[in-house]
Amino acid sequence: MRQGRFWNRANLLGFAALAVAVACGPQTERSGSPSDADERTPSSKPSEASPASPRALVQQLATEEDIRLVDLTHPLSPQSLYWPTGSPFEHRRLAWGMNEEGLWYAAAAFSSPEHLGTHLDAPIHFAEEGWTATDIPIDRLVAAAAVIDISARSARIADTTLDPDDVTTWERMNGALPRGSMLIVRTGWSSRWPDWERYYGSKTPKDAGTFHFPGVSQQAATMLVERGVAGVGIDTASIDPGVSTTFEAHRVLAAANIFNLENLANLDELPVTGGVIVALPMKIEGGSGGPTRVVAIVPR
Amino acid sequence: MRQGRFWNRANLLGFAALAVAVACGPQTERSGSPSDADERTPSSKPSEASPASPRALVQQLATEEDIRLVDLTHPLSPQSLYWPTGSPFEHRRLAWGMNEEGLWYAAAAFSSPEHLGTHLDAPIHFAEEGWTATDIPIDRLVAAAAVIDISARSARIADTTLDPDDVTTWERMNGALPRGSMLIVRTGWSSRWPDWERYYGSKTPKDAGTFHFPGVSQQAATMLVERGVAGVGIDTASIDPGVSTTFEAHRVLAAANIFNLENLANLDELPVTGGVIVALPMKIEGGSGGPTRVVAIVPR
Repeated sequence: MRQGRFWNRANLLGFAALAVAVACGPQTERSGSPSDADERTPSSKPSEASPASPRALVQQLATEEDIRLVDLTHPLSPQSLYWPTGSPFEHRRLAWGMNEEGLWYAAAAFSSPEHLGTHLDAPIHFAEEGWTATDIPIDRLVAAAAVIDISARSARIADTTLDPDDVTTWERMNGALPRGSMLIVRTGWSSRWPDWERYYGSKTPKDAGTFHFPGVSQQAATMLVERGVAGVGIDTASIDPGVSTTFEAHRVLAAANIFNLENLANLDELPVTGGVIVALPMKIEGGSGGPTRVVAIVPR
Repeated sequence: MRQGRFWNRANLLGFAALAVAVACGPQTERSGSPSDADERTPSSKPSEASPASPRALVQQLATEEDIRLVDLTHPLSPQSLYWPTGSPFEHRRLAWGMNEEGLWYAAAAFSSPEHLGTHLDAPIHFAEEGWTATDIPIDRLVAAAAVIDISARSARIADTTLDPDDVTTWERMNGALPRGSMLIVRTGWSSRWPDWERYYGSKTPKDAGTFHFPGVSQQAATMLVERGVAGVGIDTASIDPGVSTTFEAHRVLAAANIFNLENLANLDELPVTGGVIVALPMKIEGGSGGPTRVVAIVPR
């Protein structure tokens, strides 16, 4: 993990200073949140000066000497983990071989819960008036990544949470969380995938009442709403910690139309700042979420 | 549609000339194809000088005054069209309302053929040794868009195809097709979505032997393999024209490990050149393809 690479490094190109100014901006411009009434309609567009604008992100990446793509997605298979109220991913071959004319043809079908594997929670998952999967403006799905690493503490305390102190400590090092960014919580839990018992921290991993894994506290979720992040991602099964039975982080974020990305992979390849997340969910009409291919563009 | 915007416009920034040089390159460097043996392994990486490198694409976009995202994906619903050997997209609510504690919770499950809606054909769909969905290197899924518009001819002749003449005419206007780019065929067919009869050009649209819609000819597919494109996209149900029963375009492209994107939407919002396609398929382990969220980054 490189600390503050984007904010601290020398500018390679003349316009980098502008890109930094746009991406970091004055803190007072970040006081709103995606729940502001004028941004609730899916057709609304971010202002030109938004640090989350595609232009700002591309100009940020263009200052790098080289960049590469990192896949933050677990593959989908019958081994994929899902919330135990769901059911496994099923893959069924319809045709897979030579046909009568000796020509190869392969095709299959599948079934899955929306909340299986690396997936997006649409705000409607936990907020009746929240956006469905198809309501989320695509501009929100491409965002600057801000990574907070709580993996050392998580290794010691499975029930730990991202707390307001973690956010303020991060901001002291890296500057205020940019409005419209994607807050990524790295717990180190993806190394346990796809082992049901180790990933859910339970000998009875089909019983959600017995889970132990890290998440986001209600207080930190409230702070992330104030910062106006576009989404919150984590490398565990849920934004809320495993011990939660009331899902405050889900509810606080969903009420502000902030989506979640859960079961992320390969977060150790993300820099603390300077990466861009592209999270493209299946476009399930009116869905509460869905399997999502999440890719990051990072400095090489 | 803007003709040759990227290649012809004045440079805004000093490095634009370099970006152009990298993106266009000398034609002799484009003679290879993705079927080259040394690129068959999923772990292989494109050379630094590849016009399809993320760096070249980002630097290309950074020369634009402003950019925006366009969603090229039809929503997934029970109305989504699929190849008639498949079955409809099914969406089943598991929970959708207040629970016993008065807290909102919504979740659903779904089932689908891999080749339904806006989707990717992995090379193994038509080539026994071809890449599966999870074998395709992610760098191939982010590529410069080259759009060939045959919509005027398609409106008159439903059985028309993209032919080598269309490619050479396009290259006379825009320069040689860059190696690693995404060739997008615009037929205008997405305006017929999701009307089974109009989209498949048949009064019996569950009988694939009666179809009439435009596609790519075998000769054009061979030419695209020579150009070394990463993928071929189209706004119809198939890369092959509806009347095809032997699927030569599929077979020629698949044999060269070139993927297809089918049932694309909103291609009228893509410029002829200068756009970047981000096509992120569901990561179905060993799949023959799958529903794909396709987004373009285009000059505003």
